[in-house]
Amino acid sequence: MKNDSGMDAIFRPKSIAIVGASRKKGSIGRNIMHNLLEYEFNGPIFPVNPGADVIHSIKCYPTVESIPYEVDLAIIVVPKQYANQAVEDCGKKGVKGIIMITAGFKEVGGDGIKLEEELGRLIKKYKMRCVGPNCMGIINTAEEYSLDATFAPAFPYRGNIGFLSQSGALGAAILEHARDLNLGISQFISVGNKLDVSGNDIIEYWAKDENTKVILLYLESFGNPRKFTQFAREIVKEKPIIAVKSGRTWAGAKAASSHTGALAGLDVGSHALFEQCGVLRVNTVERLFDLAQAFAKQPIPKGKRVAVLTNAGGPGIMATDAVVSVGMEMATLSKGSVNKLREFLSPEASFSNPLDMIASANEEGYYKSLKIMLDDDGIDAVIVIFVHPVHINAKGIAKSIIDASAKHDDKPVLCVFMGKKDEDSGIPALQRAGLPTYQFPESAAIALASMEKYYRIKNRPEGKVKRFKNIEYEAASAVFDRAVKDGRERLTDLEVNKVLRCYGIPMPPFTIVKSLEEAVRFTDQKNYPVVLKVSSAEVVHKSDVGGVEVDLRNEAELVRGFMRIQENMKKLDKPVKNYEIMIQEMSKGGKELIIGTSYDPSFGPLIMVGLGGIYVEIMKDVSFRINPITDLDAREMITGLKGYSLLKGVRGEKGIDIDYIIEILQRLSQMIGNHPCISEMDMNPFMVFPEKEKCLALDARISLHKAEAVAMKGIFKTSKPKKK
Amino acid sequence: MKNDSGMDAIFRPKSIAIVGASRKKGSIGRNIMHNLLEYEFNGPIFPVNPGADVIHSIKCYPTVESIPYEVDLAIIVVPKQYANQAVEDCGKKGVKGIIMITAGFKEVGGDGIKLEEELGRLIKKYKMRCVGPNCMGIINTAEEYSLDATFAPAFPYRGNIGFLSQSGALGAAILEHARDLNLGISQFISVGNKLDVSGNDIIEYWAKDENTKVILLYLESFGNPRKFTQFAREIVKEKPIIAVKSGRTWAGAKAASSHTGALAGLDVGSHALFEQCGVLRVNTVERLFDLAQAFAKQPIPKGKRVAVLTNAGGPGIMATDAVVSVGMEMATLSKGSVNKLREFLSPEASFSNPLDMIASANEEGYYKSLKIMLDDDGIDAVIVIFVHPVHINAKGIAKSIIDASAKHDDKPVLCVFMGKKDEDSGIPALQRAGLPTYQFPESAAIALASMEKYYRIKNRPEGKVKRFKNIEYEAASAVFDRAVKDGRERLTDLEVNKVLRCYGIPMPPFTIVKSLEEAVRFTDQKNYPVVLKVSSAEVVHKSDVGGVEVDLRNEAELVRGFMRIQENMKKLDKPVKNYEIMIQEMSKGGKELIIGTSYDPSFGPLIMVGLGGIYVEIMKDVSFRINPITDLDAREMITGLKGYSLLKGVRGEKGIDIDYIIEILQRLSQMIGNHPCISEMDMNPFMVFPEKEKCLALDARISLHKAEAVAMKGIFKTSKPKKK
Repeated sequence: MKNDSGMDAIFRPKSIAIVGASRKKGSIGRNIMHNLLEYEFNGPIFPVNPGADVIHSIKCYPTVESIPYEVDLAIIVVPKQYANQAVEDCGKKGVKGIIMITAGFKEVGGDGIKLEEELGRLIKKYKMRCVGPNCMGIINTAEEYSLDATFAPAFPYRGNIGFLSQSGALGAAILEHARDLNLGISQFISVGNKLDVSGNDIIEYWAKDENTKVILLYLESFGNPRKFTQFAREIVKEKPIIAVKSGRTWAGAKAASSHTGALAGLDVGSHALFEQCGVLRVNTVERLFDLAQAFAKQPIPKGKRVAVLTNAGGPGIMATDAVVSVGMEMATLSKGSVNKLREFLSPEASFSNPLDMIASANEEGYYKSLKIMLDDDGIDAVIVIFVHPVHINAKGIAKSIIDASAKHDDKPVLCVFMGKKDEDSGIPALQRAGLPTYQFPESAAIALASMEKYYRIKNRPEGKVKRFKNIEYEAASAVFDRAVKDGRERLTDLEVNKVLRCYGIPMPPFTIVKSLEEAVRFTDQKNYPVVLKVSSAEVVHKSDVGGVEVDLRNEAELVRGFMRIQENMKKLDKPVKNYEIMIQEMSKGGKELIIGTSYDPSFGPLIMVGLGGIYVEIMKDVSFRINPITDLDAREMITGLKGYSLLKGVRGEKGIDIDYIIEILQRLSQMIGNHPCISEMDMNPFMVFPEKEKCLALDARISLHKAEAVAMKGIFKTSKPKKK
Repeated sequence: MKNDSGMDAIFRPKSIAIVGASRKKGSIGRNIMHNLLEYEFNGPIFPVNPGADVIHSIKCYPTVESIPYEVDLAIIVVPKQYANQAVEDCGKKGVKGIIMITAGFKEVGGDGIKLEEELGRLIKKYKMRCVGPNCMGIINTAEEYSLDATFAPAFPYRGNIGFLSQSGALGAAILEHARDLNLGISQFISVGNKLDVSGNDIIEYWAKDENTKVILLYLESFGNPRKFTQFAREIVKEKPIIAVKSGRTWAGAKAASSHTGALAGLDVGSHALFEQCGVLRVNTVERLFDLAQAFAKQPIPKGKRVAVLTNAGGPGIMATDAVVSVGMEMATLSKGSVNKLREFLSPEASFSNPLDMIASANEEGYYKSLKIMLDDDGIDAVIVIFVHPVHINAKGIAKSIIDASAKHDDKPVLCVFMGKKDEDSGIPALQRAGLPTYQFPESAAIALASMEKYYRIKNRPEGKVKRFKNIEYEAASAVFDRAVKDGRERLTDLEVNKVLRCYGIPMPPFTIVKSLEEAVRFTDQKNYPVVLKVSSAEVVHKSDVGGVEVDLRNEAELVRGFMRIQENMKKLDKPVKNYEIMIQEMSKGGKELIIGTSYDPSFGPLIMVGLGGIYVEIMKDVSFRINPITDLDAREMITGLKGYSLLKGVRGEKGIDIDYIIEILQRLSQMIGNHPCISEMDMNPFMVFPEKEKCLALDARISLHKAEAVAMKGIFKTSKPKKK
């Protein structure tokens, strides 16, 4: 096998057999033939159909084996009951690639699953690559191949976008949409059931494809998210990947005992994955193309400063709103630029940003003004708006914009042409010339914001997964092993304390007291105020059951607090019988974080950080990442919180030690990597201060996977760390 | 003047003069003539131009006065230096309405302002109504008038949408867009500088217009927001008003001394106004039309339960995502419906919601399935998705949908047709038949969510502005009068306490102490813990300067706290010299709100409520409304907070007394209505509990308008309340 992983047989075949080719108008077998011919595939095509001699003016064969020439790729459209026989036939013939259009496999359940398993065996047996089943085909617009092996009605323009769709129907609609926008593609694939050729295979293939500059994905699920994470980080440094992932809001209704688990409902795994890899995510297909137009055709801006050039005030204001609301900035025109503009624009123009040239602006106005903006060092990107006044030639304006921007390839220019979209509007000319053109300003602003985000992704430093040496792996393992052996699903408070200490995560020392006398004795040696907490296997959330007493400042308060806890345990609906009481010195001041982990069936362990306290449940101001996390991931988790400014310090107060929180997150990452039996954990609250020495987890919980789950899911697969 | 406020002369003229009519192709004077003729205005039109005998085959007159027939409306397009002379001429002739297309008035400043003032005088003198200046004209598509008095290139279809644009350029682009969507309008107006005819005039006029069912607004500013508030509340009960208001993100860079003032930056006035009136706001023109299509053509849903009918899985998932993310719900199909569907759909279809009929779904499938959904009592609205498989006739599918939905006028049906948009796609047929058709599912979901919101607006009870009787108006007035007389811009702590008490807003009693001895004496009679706060005209934010000591539990702590405040006042960069210290019992527990008011130059006083504490600054979880507020407004302010669930009580704890907070907001509303010298106030924190008796403002500040501002802006205009 070549280093193309066999994918060339799919996208770069020298000859093609169409098994199930047909003469019947409207049939898939006919449409595929028709597309291959109309798009003028650069090699011979061989229709295969035992019931016909000639199809679409081409000699037809009864079987693939009977074709007297070499066949690289077979496209199979026969009914499902004949599909696997056709594949066997292809295998014997030495065909290298299969596109299985035929549906009725795994996606319909029942016998379809068996059919797909059989197909899988055949593919392996003959060492072929296979796209589908249940797909819409593939396209390679490169001149040497000129291959449209789909049954979609629209022929694509040649361009630099690779587009992968997990839905055939959406794929066809999207090809149509791309054509409407005069947007060309390099390759297209409808992956169907992904039996063999996966999304990951395609992305790796396109990473090396010279014709593909931008990668678009429509995804419904991840096949192998961990592999995706590994290589997508690399690829996005070279080529932007833009994805629509549907199934966003389908919260898994899973019961979770930890806060972290409860917060991990809404698609956080996908979100974390995209953030970590630097994949740009959009929510709709419309946005996908707003971005695709810009990325495919324009340079990436090097900053946030946007200038708006317009011939009408209203759209200029709308553009300003849009620019600011997506987090970009309105540039300030330099004095030099303003002086130059005054030389030729109407004195009634407004010489600021947006630069409103008013309705009289002509071709010269657009040309010169845009050039001045592109020359202005204070501007990173330009949005050009044109509303068509009756006496102005729109095509001429389009030409001015094309000419002015042609001389600058360092700053993106995005156009907004409002009104008609016909040839006279200038829009098709702009699009063909590589100037993305939108109907309203918001799309342009959103595209620019994504490009600027990509600029930062491209230039962000490589993060590192740190392995701390000063940990006590064996001691921690012993604790976990014992709990797993006992069949327990939670560690005791003492065990949690021990494990965290093994990984250098600070918790305040505490003493277990069994009586009021012991508690009073404890405080003899310590300073008030103290905290009392119930500790019991029967209690998950201590404060929910009235099991926490804080800020006890003297013996009288301590006695009252101790007795209150005892009473509270009795008066519960389900009284807690077996418990001890922990006593510890009270930590004062600081800010509350919640730090934790939860296990996602597709993505594995997720790490979370958020602003703690009761607000975490209401505001949901939390960040998740997939384990393992790099130092960069950890930093982005913290700086991405809405409450980050609170952590940095507001109103002149000192900020917390962010670097130390990054370290704690990395220590946690190492811990859950080393001990995959951990299913969920919370440190809530983890108190943070400007001084690193003061930071600590005031309370923590660790839950373990159920023994059966561990056995079934192979959760223990993670490799053990090297010994110190 | 008739009760149409003279607007009939604009929209329903019997004859029209075009002053500045022209033969020159591409000129505005020619295009308006052309549009009037092409659209076949139902009365005579008279070109006026001293340099021509005939224009566009019609006899031309040198002046309006020389026209030997009656003229209702004059459209003026002459250069600005002749414009007012033409108006005078019209006045003498007895013309009742003017559309001043000509630009170069107030919007260009300088002499333009004088020109506009002169125009205003002439309008008044001759009792005419005038649209513009600097506008693009008006349209009335009603068959009896058939009036297109614009120079926009696209003729509108007849329909039921009234559309007002504050930007001429955007107006033209939007008319074009409406035509693309096969969307008809009833009347259109480009209001220009709004010298005479205002947005409010038009909305009132359309409220009574039988042909107008939906009102669309593109606004850049409000002329008279208070008047708008008064009548828009009424109108939206009959006709939905949908608005794009630009200038959203232009935060007024005003210095504010209160939290409320600082939070009132981002366009909160417009937002509050729209919420209070029930006007639906969208951020982009695209969304405006997504909604307009649905509102113009479909019934309002009576609930949130949406069913999705599709022939492709991917778009079905995307629709589900979209439905859930806009706050609607996915309906559950009844068992009866599922049984009926099983009778004719492919067994490979998925019989849930989304109902995926798979690609083989034909005309019968769409017709019957849609009918079953519309008959299902568990469904409030349906989104029908169609992706074009090669062998299916899209026009036939469109017809099935039209036929099935024709028999139900109680539930909205919105379509998503992906792919081509030509006649064969079925899309134009659907649109002409009154079925809004979108390209991707998100637009449909957003439109449905807005319709459902409108359903609730339409049915929400009438709120009432409550005037409490048990207030001490005179006593409060005396406090304010003295402060204003003294030229002060802030009330003292004692004054604030007094004023709040006058309005029945509880604050804890406190005592001013001048020495440590006095403080200790205070506590002799009270229970610890106590709070100390600095009180000084030099201090705005007490805690920022170290002027607050809380939870002092005994004499030793009190002494240390007192001395710490004294030290803190000394060691400031600008030491505080004149201060007193307040002592009060400490309130414990409860939740923190911030309640306040700030003054907006266009909207007057705004009232705010939010979750208090440090989070208010970070999370900005606050609601604003324009004063006065009704009980309903107050309730919506509270229930609209992201943190509302926190106030209701989380994890089984008791919620706070929401009704009492509503009362406090209304008391505040009455106070700021009675004393318009108040510029800003904060109660921060306002502590709330499940028990009404415990709720109180722990700290409060009141600032007053500067004396000059009061004099200049006429802020004192609010009428005094009736005596008790």
